[in-house]
Amino acid sequence: MSNSKNIFNKTVMPVGEMASGAKLTVPVYSYKTDGFVGPSVYIQANMHGAEVQGNAVIFQLLELLKDCNIKGNITLVPYANPVACNHKNGEYTLGRFDPITGVNWNRMYHFDESVIAPFADKFIDATDGDIQQQFKQLMLNEIEQKLEHNIFGLTTGQRIAYQLQRLAHQADLVLDLHTGPISSKHLYCPEYAQASASYFDIPHTILIPNDFDGAMDEATFCPWWYLQQAYEAKGRTFEMGQGIFNKESFTVELGSQEQIDLDVAHQDAMGILSYLQYKGVIDAPNYQPQEMTRYACYLKDYKALYSPMGGMVDYLANFGEPLAAGEPLARILRMDNYGDGDPLHYVALDHPVLPILHFASASVNQGTELYKVFSKFFELNAE
Amino acid sequence: MSNSKNIFNKTVMPVGEMASGAKLTVPVYSYKTDGFVGPSVYIQANMHGAEVQGNAVIFQLLELLKDCNIKGNITLVPYANPVACNHKNGEYTLGRFDPITGVNWNRMYHFDESVIAPFADKFIDATDGDIQQQFKQLMLNEIEQKLEHNIFGLTTGQRIAYQLQRLAHQADLVLDLHTGPISSKHLYCPEYAQASASYFDIPHTILIPNDFDGAMDEATFCPWWYLQQAYEAKGRTFEMGQGIFNKESFTVELGSQEQIDLDVAHQDAMGILSYLQYKGVIDAPNYQPQEMTRYACYLKDYKALYSPMGGMVDYLANFGEPLAAGEPLARILRMDNYGDGDPLHYVALDHPVLPILHFASASVNQGTELYKVFSKFFELNAE
Amino acid sequence: MSNSKNIFNKTVMPVGEMASGAKLTVPVYSYKTDGFVGPSVYIQANMHGAEVQGNAVIFQLLELLKDCNIKGNITLVPYANPVACNHKNGEYTLGRFDPITGVNWNRMYHFDESVIAPFADKFIDATDGDIQQQFKQLMLNEIEQKLEHNIFGLTTGQRIAYQLQRLAHQADLVLDLHTGPISSKHLYCPEYAQASASYFDIPHTILIPNDFDGAMDEATFCPWWYLQQAYEAKGRTFEMGQGIFNKESFTVELGSQEQIDLDVAHQDAMGILSYLQYKGVIDAPNYQPQEMTRYACYLKDYKALYSPMGGMVDYLANFGEPLAAGEPLARILRMDNYGDGDPLHYVALDHPVLPILHFASASVNQGTELYKVFSKFFELNAE
Amino acid sequence: MSNSKNIFNKTVMPVGEMASGAKLTVPVYSYKTDGFVGPSVYIQANMHGAEVQGNAVIFQLLELLKDCNIKGNITLVPYANPVACNHKNGEYTLGRFDPITGVNWNRMYHFDESVIAPFADKFIDATDGDIQQQFKQLMLNEIEQKLEHNIFGLTTGQRIAYQLQRLAHQADLVLDLHTGPISSKHLYCPEYAQASASYFDIPHTILIPNDFDGAMDEATFCPWWYLQQAYEAKGRTFEMGQGIFNKESFTVELGSQEQIDLDVAHQDAMGILSYLQYKGVIDAPNYQPQEMTRYACYLKDYKALYSPMGGMVDYLANFGEPLAAGEPLARILRMDNYGDGDPLHYVALDHPVLPILHFASASVNQGTELYKVFSKFFELNAE
Repeated sequence: MSNSKNIFNKTVMPVGEMASGAKLTVPVYSYKTDGFVGPSVYIQANMHGAEVQGNAVIFQLLELLKDCNIKGNITLVPYANPVACNHKNGEYTLGRFDPITGVNWNRMYHFDESVIAPFADKFIDATDGDIQQQFKQLMLNEIEQKLEHNIFGLTTGQRIAYQLQRLAHQADLVLDLHTGPISSKHLYCPEYAQASASYFDIPHTILIPNDFDGAMDEATFCPWWYLQQAYEAKGRTFEMGQGIFNKESFTVELGSQEQIDLDVAHQDAMGILSYLQYKGVIDAPNYQPQEMTRYACYLKDYKALYSPMGGMVDYLANFGEPLAAGEPLARILRMDNYGDGDPLHYVALDHPVLPILHFASASVNQGTELYKVFSKFFELNAE
Repeated sequence: MSNSKNIFNKTVMPVGEMASGAKLTVPVYSYKTDGFVGPSVYIQANMHGAEVQGNAVIFQLLELLKDCNIKGNITLVPYANPVACNHKNGEYTLGRFDPITGVNWNRMYHFDESVIAPFADKFIDATDGDIQQQFKQLMLNEIEQKLEHNIFGLTTGQRIAYQLQRLAHQADLVLDLHTGPISSKHLYCPEYAQASASYFDIPHTILIPNDFDGAMDEATFCPWWYLQQAYEAKGRTFEMGQGIFNKESFTVELGSQEQIDLDVAHQDAMGILSYLQYKGVIDAPNYQPQEMTRYACYLKDYKALYSPMGGMVDYLANFGEPLAAGEPLARILRMDNYGDGDPLHYVALDHPVLPILHFASASVNQGTELYKVFSKFFELNAE
Repeated sequence: MSNSKNIFNKTVMPVGEMASGAKLTVPVYSYKTDGFVGPSVYIQANMHGAEVQGNAVIFQLLELLKDCNIKGNITLVPYANPVACNHKNGEYTLGRFDPITGVNWNRMYHFDESVIAPFADKFIDATDGDIQQQFKQLMLNEIEQKLEHNIFGLTTGQRIAYQLQRLAHQADLVLDLHTGPISSKHLYCPEYAQASASYFDIPHTILIPNDFDGAMDEATFCPWWYLQQAYEAKGRTFEMGQGIFNKESFTVELGSQEQIDLDVAHQDAMGILSYLQYKGVIDAPNYQPQEMTRYACYLKDYKALYSPMGGMVDYLANFGEPLAAGEPLARILRMDNYGDGDPLHYVALDHPVLPILHFASASVNQGTELYKVFSKFFELNAE
Repeated sequence: MSNSKNIFNKTVMPVGEMASGAKLTVPVYSYKTDGFVGPSVYIQANMHGAEVQGNAVIFQLLELLKDCNIKGNITLVPYANPVACNHKNGEYTLGRFDPITGVNWNRMYHFDESVIAPFADKFIDATDGDIQQQFKQLMLNEIEQKLEHNIFGLTTGQRIAYQLQRLAHQADLVLDLHTGPISSKHLYCPEYAQASASYFDIPHTILIPNDFDGAMDEATFCPWWYLQQAYEAKGRTFEMGQGIFNKESFTVELGSQEQIDLDVAHQDAMGILSYLQYKGVIDAPNYQPQEMTRYACYLKDYKALYSPMGGMVDYLANFGEPLAAGEPLARILRMDNYGDGDPLHYVALDHPVLPILHFASASVNQGTELYKVFSKFFELNAE
């Protein structure tokens, strides 16, 4: 591209209707041309209602991309779930699940594993390019079928998820921007894509296996991983993250929910551009990852700690700093025990952990998730 | 027992603590003696907060059981989930899921299929009595382990569910009393226990397969079904519903939520006693099932119909009456379309259905569950 | 008008924006011509989110008005508060108050009593027509001022209320369509307009004094009543409900919330047309009030009964039937007391009452409003 | 008192019952002896559910008072409203208002102005001591009457409020510990008690007039202020804050809600002890106010700023630092406008303000309260 500014395209996608008939829509921004030869990327934000910082990051990405040398299609979708982001309850946004059904908005994407084997059978001898094109089309057809041909209809969340997924399946790389409750920055990264984790400016990475549990990242990389496995089983070998299997999806946790900070978002955007530069979506060598110690753990070792009692919690552990065995993560105030019991209860674990996030409120029931921690962790080295 | 009144035992089980330190407890009523030789039954109510009619049914059961000839242990647990039943939001009870996490309270019971095969291996030649006793003990140990030995703790719902399950595993028959939103009476019944369905005074039965999805009924009958299958695979044959596999679990849907009616509860209790009489838990031949047309369908044919649009719904279909193809289930009012669009949208299906329940409110989003219907149904004949 | 169908005008009024930027609008239907000489009427519905039946009534009014001989301006506003009617929480609509602040949506209308005395001073000798026109303009200016000139802004509810009030102030008669929770039909009627109550097909009337507490009905009739009083104090006498003071406002409670029934709405609409016929807004003598016993009580005798305990309520009293002293309104189930306490508590009053509505759920806290009753009531005679 | 540790008394006060029958209680701690001659103080915390830091402050006060020389009765009530503090909705506590009715928990205290004049008539010539004792008794009787003699019952919130008020009326000084949403520390102080404001370690004071609007502070000082006025009108002069009218009530806003910090609570407790030392409740001269610039404004100048649009807010203004006219308080992100509108809207005022608190979430509707600010403020000088 020349030194004139890049021009994006904006469309508006209807995703739902409320009881009053009000139509909710999602803005879709894209840089797309036939001339692009680099990998394509899909970036969305705010699927969970309270996790709003990603919208500001998309704002900053759009600002920064104006002056970038773009090599691959880029699609950006802020406000991915307006049903969730508009749902206040009291002062906060009740945005993690459908307020009617309780279903987590990020567990409603679609993948039907049963289509993989027949595809590999049919296209066992196809060219790489055909495999890529036909399989992408299959994924799109599957979603189209779900959206358009179902006499019993779709849930509110499926309708939103499938429309977003239709956009995401058109890209090679997928970034789903989330946040934790009160949280450090962290990244969900497929195990096979570990090398990419060091190109984000994010100090904590959870390496996830290839299991589909309904989330956007899984819904977009699992099909390709299953396909690669199916070919391998038939003796045709591909490598994940390479060639036509250059497919990566990440859930990017940008810090704490219920907050917008445009200055931090500018930093967040630069970290994402560093990854896009690494993958060849843009040609902008000034975007490079920051130096930092990056920790990782496997998903099975990413542990939630539930409160052993009801009470009010003074959270003590700092995020991102290894905490020694026996050191308190929190102390729980129980004024009802003052005078005739134990008014302060300290919560500790018997092995070192790396605290990543904690609950959003001091007040907890017995069994409320207090912290999430890396319980076995290691340093990730950039290559 | 003599003609003096039966005496029950009452205990109180702590199930949770709130932020203020308030302890929530559940009353547990039982008729239990060493002399009982009939099958035992466990009955609970109100696991979902708004589904309160079962508490009134337990009231009436306790009243009626005073004068029954009891043959097997009976345990009754009303208010099974006080966290849920105390959670008002606006005028209604937000009781289907944990208000913090969105997780359905009736999807948190435990069953780990991996313990089955080793058990069958170890006890392949054991006596029937030993198998029954040892497997029951294994189920109880599993729950005990979950409750007592977990350094990361339990969720609020797991703690409640596991404690209830510990009681339920001690019984042969399990009845979990629920309701629908606005609903006819209906019954979830394991496929193998179909013959029992006609002993309840309930006109609609959903026959469920042997898959575990976290609910109480599944958590208590699936282990035995898997065990029977494991023995069968090894050449030792038992029949489900017979002998040591005389294990049945039902989710009994008593009608609509948010309502208590003690007179209706008296009828409901008599229907349950009819089933207990049939199974030999009591010897009270005056409790016999009512004559009625009983319809059934398989779980795969029990369909939710989601609203094709946001709007306000005038529900038209009557519960329990077969509805012809093309006949409207509902009409949706869209005043925003009045004058320049279609203010009334009729919702119909292309095949006959039996409407079982509908949504609790006229106001729906696009994608809200409007109705649940038997889409392929047949008559169930009492044997 | 001739026998051709009447043509209404439809506009769309923006009333709010959500976090995603989504704009919420309200449809406004009007029959308005310069030639109309009868009194004008403003009818709105659904200011409280769950109270939806009024939308169906407006649908039926629009259908019926097509063929009426219309004499005065008619404005109809369904979905008056889309913020509220779109706010689901669990299966129900959390619609009585702003979910962020708790403020009742029907307590945010505006009236500043301090403008009355200066107006009466200034226009003490004005013609009747001038008084009417100038005072209506003053009311509109007051609202305009609130909407447009406030550097600190307006609350969400004020913005909605003031825009509706701007429409309502242009009419002589105001009907605000509401519902109760689970409720009989009843009517809030200014004491001075008692004669009009018998022209609605509503068996229960609450006669309200001339105090402003923020509701739509009060906001539209109180100013005129205060003005009449101010003139009277200065020796110029007008009669409320006559001539330029032919101003009446009613809150019409159409039955239970969370329900749409288009057939019942047709009946409701005919009752409203009966009132409009009586007042001369239409000339359609076929719309006449039904014969029925109409009871009334004064607002001070319209009593809420709060639950003396937490528990689960079996509501026993029938709406609209006088209940003798000592007869139970409800019985409260307390299973936690079964076996060692009193599991059933009966709630009664020491004097006869007329039950009008009860709480929407069986589950109540200590102090939840159980019933509202006419505690001193009398028959209302149509004149 | 000697150098042995002080011993407090602990009782438990029942304040409500939930649907399951669960009883909610409040712990009450008191240092009380007949020998105390200093003024008495009542301190409560957590009337609003999410405002929990006051509980930690009471913990630290109890710890510090063990070693204090106590001169007057001290009563401390943490967890004042367990109904509110146990009400989670999503991850947060929906604690500002009754979740069923929307009524603010801190607007339900009682004061009936009509009892003042008759009392002053009757006791016009009574001794100071008699006036004090009789009027205190009258206040207590009024509450007792409300609690015990009402055939229609009390709301959930009234029952809680009246029981707390019964304790508070027994004290001369009342501290109601609250917090803002995201907030600086600030103090609501009666205008006549301005001199006391500088003895708290709180930099911002709102001076409130003597109007009763249902809050605890008003409910306890307004009666005395009205009484003093009534005597003055009859020619008998007392000074507020002196002698038998040494009655002061404060709402102490401790910072942000949803947080417990025991270390900050220790500081907060020392600031409260500084006030108690000043008033002679304790004799502990080491507790002295910190040096700081203290700003004040009158309640009429304490302004809420409502969002002019829906959107996502990046809050820019720092608390407690005067902000010049025209400087932005916040910028509102509107991604739906990106590309074809204005994606960033800056919110500013036309005069200098002192920002005190802001909304708890980035996501706002049009009309959500963004900030509260001192719009005319001045320095408060300690005397």
